[in-house]
Amino acid sequence: MTNKTILFTPGPLSTSRATKNAMLRDWGSRDAEFIALTQDISLKLEKIAGVDQKHRTHNCVLIQGSGTFVIEATIDTLVPRGAKILVLVNGAYGKRMAKICKIYGRPFVTLETDEDTPPTENQITEILEKDRAIKYVLAVHCETTSGILNPIQEISNAASKAGCYLIIDAMSSFGAIPLSIKQIKCAAIVASSNKCLEGVPGVGFAIIDEAILVNAAKNSSSLSLNLFDQWQNFKNTGQWRFTPPTHVLAALGQALIEHEAEGGVEGRGKRYKKNRDTLIKDMQLLGFKTYLDSKIQSPIIVTFHLPNVKGFDFNEFYERLHKRGFMIYPGKLTKVDSFRIGCIGHITHFDLKNLTEVICDIIKELGVELK
Amino acid sequence: MTNKTILFTPGPLSTSRATKNAMLRDWGSRDAEFIALTQDISLKLEKIAGVDQKHRTHNCVLIQGSGTFVIEATIDTLVPRGAKILVLVNGAYGKRMAKICKIYGRPFVTLETDEDTPPTENQITEILEKDRAIKYVLAVHCETTSGILNPIQEISNAASKAGCYLIIDAMSSFGAIPLSIKQIKCAAIVASSNKCLEGVPGVGFAIIDEAILVNAAKNSSSLSLNLFDQWQNFKNTGQWRFTPPTHVLAALGQALIEHEAEGGVEGRGKRYKKNRDTLIKDMQLLGFKTYLDSKIQSPIIVTFHLPNVKGFDFNEFYERLHKRGFMIYPGKLTKVDSFRIGCIGHITHFDLKNLTEVICDIIKELGVELK
Repeated sequence: MTNKTILFTPGPLSTSRATKNAMLRDWGSRDAEFIALTQDISLKLEKIAGVDQKHRTHNCVLIQGSGTFVIEATIDTLVPRGAKILVLVNGAYGKRMAKICKIYGRPFVTLETDEDTPPTENQITEILEKDRAIKYVLAVHCETTSGILNPIQEISNAASKAGCYLIIDAMSSFGAIPLSIKQIKCAAIVASSNKCLEGVPGVGFAIIDEAILVNAAKNSSSLSLNLFDQWQNFKNTGQWRFTPPTHVLAALGQALIEHEAEGGVEGRGKRYKKNRDTLIKDMQLLGFKTYLDSKIQSPIIVTFHLPNVKGFDFNEFYERLHKRGFMIYPGKLTKVDSFRIGCIGHITHFDLKNLTEVICDIIKELGVELK
Repeated sequence: MTNKTILFTPGPLSTSRATKNAMLRDWGSRDAEFIALTQDISLKLEKIAGVDQKHRTHNCVLIQGSGTFVIEATIDTLVPRGAKILVLVNGAYGKRMAKICKIYGRPFVTLETDEDTPPTENQITEILEKDRAIKYVLAVHCETTSGILNPIQEISNAASKAGCYLIIDAMSSFGAIPLSIKQIKCAAIVASSNKCLEGVPGVGFAIIDEAILVNAAKNSSSLSLNLFDQWQNFKNTGQWRFTPPTHVLAALGQALIEHEAEGGVEGRGKRYKKNRDTLIKDMQLLGFKTYLDSKIQSPIIVTFHLPNVKGFDFNEFYERLHKRGFMIYPGKLTKVDSFRIGCIGHITHFDLKNLTEVICDIIKELGVELK
């Protein structure tokens, strides 16, 4: 039952053996030991986000479900009913936040740039100056649709200057790309267990400015997704309001120990960058072309153009890789045929080396000429 | 890291080693193998609910999160905005459904009976005949607040006669107490992975009447909790809309194999009944008194009166049991001081025997005289 396949995906991804082993125990969800585990995880996540425990400004609020659950919960809990929102969109996850605003009937506008183009500080400032009704800005730090790294400092500056609150979808960057509330002024950083933290999927969290959270008691229109109530319950009892995914949290606890041991955000980011650089260099040698300019290419996931040559069929390519134990990811771009290879998870540049060697073999088998 | 503690709780509970071992693999959530696992789980859950695969009337829709997430999702997805609801309440989980109706602004009334008293068919019929606006009835099959087993056949009869739809919270009964759509007419049966199915927590499901589901496209006011969209996506792609808790599902897959091997609902129910009967008999010998009449006592969890005698302190009692590796559960009744012992999970009556022997020792240590 153990892994024969390495995942080069944007998460769920390959996790360490010790992280999976942490799930070999059943926890009582209302027991003191589990309360301590929950608190330990929250503190470590706050630390990664740069929260100063002596002068706490932000609180970590954990919640069951996938990343989208916690994004939805954060928007609905923090943004008051009538407040207008600007959503920055250059991929599927920006679009998803706009969809949530629409479903919840929150007034919103979007700033949509191409999938290979980050928004600029000036563009955002212009919109916020023209429309003073906008009070919240929603941004995706790293869009795994393309792998683009959005300029979060500039976005934060623009929002801050205009007196707007910023909510950051840091799902696929948190823990590997610096994002500290000390530098980036924001209302909330939202992420999940199963990306750069290298935990297993099933839990998300938002690290929320307490000054905003205390005033958010009445916004949420849900029971399960109410992060104010969730926060209050953690504060008052240390317990989850509703049954937590105990094993998933035990895995996250172990994953966070490993994150710390690797040197935190810096150490993890360094490994991922080496993964990315190795991947891009070797893929380029094989004749593949990256989609993004290297200046905006995150170390999370790399999008390659689908070779427009005879004999190259993506499904065939995917299946042959899969049979040899390598799982890559289909493309998600709207205008360009592409595929993606993730650089994150419990993998090193040697795994990427192995992957590109196998890709080289498969290209030969398929008789494809890329260069 | 493995278990030194046996959980006598209403879930999360003790799971088998093989179920936990199934989590030692990382799955690609969009891969064919995982799609097959998801489908296999759905089919097995439908089978447990008595769905005939040749003439399918109901569909299993899985969703991330705890039991409350899927209860909320089911109510919001199935009940049209203006439709009036009757909620049957004799414990915390009935109250929770009423709370969800309130949060979502659905008009509702409750039929509240004492925590040791099931509602009768006549009581329900009377309400439904008087108030023809009521279109939905919400009922809890087994209320773990007390351990009471509510008369689901009578409830279904009353709802059915009045032309109302029934949604059953079968969280803590599903898989161990017979509940077949062949006998019980209902719109939906709602449950989760981590109770009588003996999986780990992190995923829930609703087995929904397709005739109702097809007309429910526009009810939900959420993205993540929209069971119509979730169903459509499973139907069209086999995939989850948003990242599933892959390891939790792998565990559920294994747990369902074990459920089948034990003889399905009948076999599992038989073991739990023996657990319950052993527990009650031995606890009564020690001088403890059960809260419920034996006719309505489920084989899921047993509530005992907290002995009102000098020297008996629940926290002390709990801690001493805990130190010896036995985890029981505090009471949840509103009017009576109590504690609870679960009969479910990967345990046998020998484990209950061991538990009551240790309880006997602790009572002696505490110098408590119960009889």
